[in-house]
Amino acid sequence: MAIRVAVDAMGGDHAPNEIVEGAVRALKSSEGRIHIQLCGPKKIIQSILDTYGPLSGIEILHAPQVIGMGDSPVAAVRSKRKSSIHVGLTHHKESYSDAFISAGNTGAIGAASLFVLGRLAGVFRPSIPTLFPTTDGLCTILDVGSNMDSRPEHLLQFAKMGSAYARIIMDIAQPRIGLLSVGEEPAKGNELVRSTHELLVNALELNFIGNIEGRDIFHKKADVVVCDGFVGNVILKLAESLMTALPEMIHQELQELKPDNATLDLIKTMLSGLARRFDPEHNGGGSPLLGVEGEVLIMHGSATAGAVEQCIILAAQIAKANLTSEIQRALVP
Amino acid sequence: MAIRVAVDAMGGDHAPNEIVEGAVRALKSSEGRIHIQLCGPKKIIQSILDTYGPLSGIEILHAPQVIGMGDSPVAAVRSKRKSSIHVGLTHHKESYSDAFISAGNTGAIGAASLFVLGRLAGVFRPSIPTLFPTTDGLCTILDVGSNMDSRPEHLLQFAKMGSAYARIIMDIAQPRIGLLSVGEEPAKGNELVRSTHELLVNALELNFIGNIEGRDIFHKKADVVVCDGFVGNVILKLAESLMTALPEMIHQELQELKPDNATLDLIKTMLSGLARRFDPEHNGGGSPLLGVEGEVLIMHGSATAGAVEQCIILAAQIAKANLTSEIQRALVP
Repeated sequence: MAIRVAVDAMGGDHAPNEIVEGAVRALKSSEGRIHIQLCGPKKIIQSILDTYGPLSGIEILHAPQVIGMGDSPVAAVRSKRKSSIHVGLTHHKESYSDAFISAGNTGAIGAASLFVLGRLAGVFRPSIPTLFPTTDGLCTILDVGSNMDSRPEHLLQFAKMGSAYARIIMDIAQPRIGLLSVGEEPAKGNELVRSTHELLVNALELNFIGNIEGRDIFHKKADVVVCDGFVGNVILKLAESLMTALPEMIHQELQELKPDNATLDLIKTMLSGLARRFDPEHNGGGSPLLGVEGEVLIMHGSATAGAVEQCIILAAQIAKANLTSEIQRALVP
Repeated sequence: MAIRVAVDAMGGDHAPNEIVEGAVRALKSSEGRIHIQLCGPKKIIQSILDTYGPLSGIEILHAPQVIGMGDSPVAAVRSKRKSSIHVGLTHHKESYSDAFISAGNTGAIGAASLFVLGRLAGVFRPSIPTLFPTTDGLCTILDVGSNMDSRPEHLLQFAKMGSAYARIIMDIAQPRIGLLSVGEEPAKGNELVRSTHELLVNALELNFIGNIEGRDIFHKKADVVVCDGFVGNVILKLAESLMTALPEMIHQELQELKPDNATLDLIKTMLSGLARRFDPEHNGGGSPLLGVEGEVLIMHGSATAGAVEQCIILAAQIAKANLTSEIQRALVP
């Protein structure tokens, strides 16, 4: 049976057109393995869908209300029960969908997920991981922004949830967990990291390899990098900006070298391959909200059709592998 | 009169040979504007110097003791008064040197600087800045590792000291100060950053441009990026690792493109230019210890002759501009 992915057609800077476009692409590339449920005002979505001609495997879940970037997340969750986010999550809750994805207001998606789906038993705080480029494929970093001012027990849970996520998504039996610090020695780092180190050493079910440093991330010393959401968000955005900074720096280097046109073309191709590595669109398209009672994935507000397509495929993979049950097992062994 | 720079000839992984080599290079390139004082055991240093033939403008400050990486920094400061670090700092204290540089144990240099030179009036904690590559030259980031678990008033001082440093080193009258956070809004970020934002808004003598994000650093949205030492150290090391990660990633991209030899040579040249941007050796060679009563610069433990040469030149520039007085003025206006 096809995996049913509910898609918030109204969330994000390029909604609804790019979202629908991405959904149609995912539908086609999945060849019947994914069933799409577009959440949004029926008339609007239908008129866009009509431009693609007849399609099977895609339906509309009518949601007349829209949560804007200006809306207070918590207030919107309570007052806008007919929003695309609410309708999608409710369908997931009632098992009419296997996963829900959105490029809308992250705060609103998080609040609505907790409100509609609830928190997994024992979870202190849900966490958002990201897939990050290295010289040897992707690694997972978490948290990347949902948690400021974390406590050691939060980071321990991030490690457990990240390990479960990496097992599924990277297909590794025992992902190597690294704690991000400023030196390998357990005594190095800030108070949070020093206390977390101790907790991780005692979490015998984890493949904890110790502290890692900023320099180890790109060289994939760990499969899962654990840090608080402030640090994770800073390095994620720093790395993403390489997508635009590197071409500019390389262009500057080439000023004096004056390559001919054929060489320039080759370098451009090389550069776009390099930039793609740092483009979130090519690293899963979105990230799961770990720790809620369901499979919810959050995309960048700027998500384009390519990111939406990738995120739908990732959502289907996560739903099929039953990530939430895996996380529940990891947290309460 | 020549600026006198005392150089710890015994500190770092490649001491004393690379240190002496770098000192000789700086001596030659400065054409009489810099006078070098090598600190270390006279016999050892002299025998290395002899290999360069006769030189003027360089002398040896005899220091028979060595502080190793294994020594406790604080204990070594008290017990090894004849170490190269102690002798160099004492000469600076007594105005026989205008600056002191070392690639030795950072903790020992910091402790010895506080012990011998003392803290500038009103300084909570000395801070280490770094010069960081952007698409538009270098920016200054601080703190990058001497302070874990900072308080808002510490970050405010980092901003003031960083502003004074950038004024001198980057020759900008009113450096733009950015506070590193996870969003532009003052309410974004962790507790530390939110409280620091308020302090910076009220520091009217600073050109505070507000919060900046990880993505803004490489694009030089700010001249001075303020963060705590944990975050600064992580991003500094992450960026430095691009020096090795980028060539590997580019090599992977080229596998399919199969460039001819001439193109490959051009790409190699381009690549080494790119890698140089992320090499600390080319970004000043070392960093001042801001907030102590004197001009002390700290190099990487792995500093080579090139870094030593750069750092001596930077030290002379800082000493000539009287950075410490500038910082004192910035802190107590």
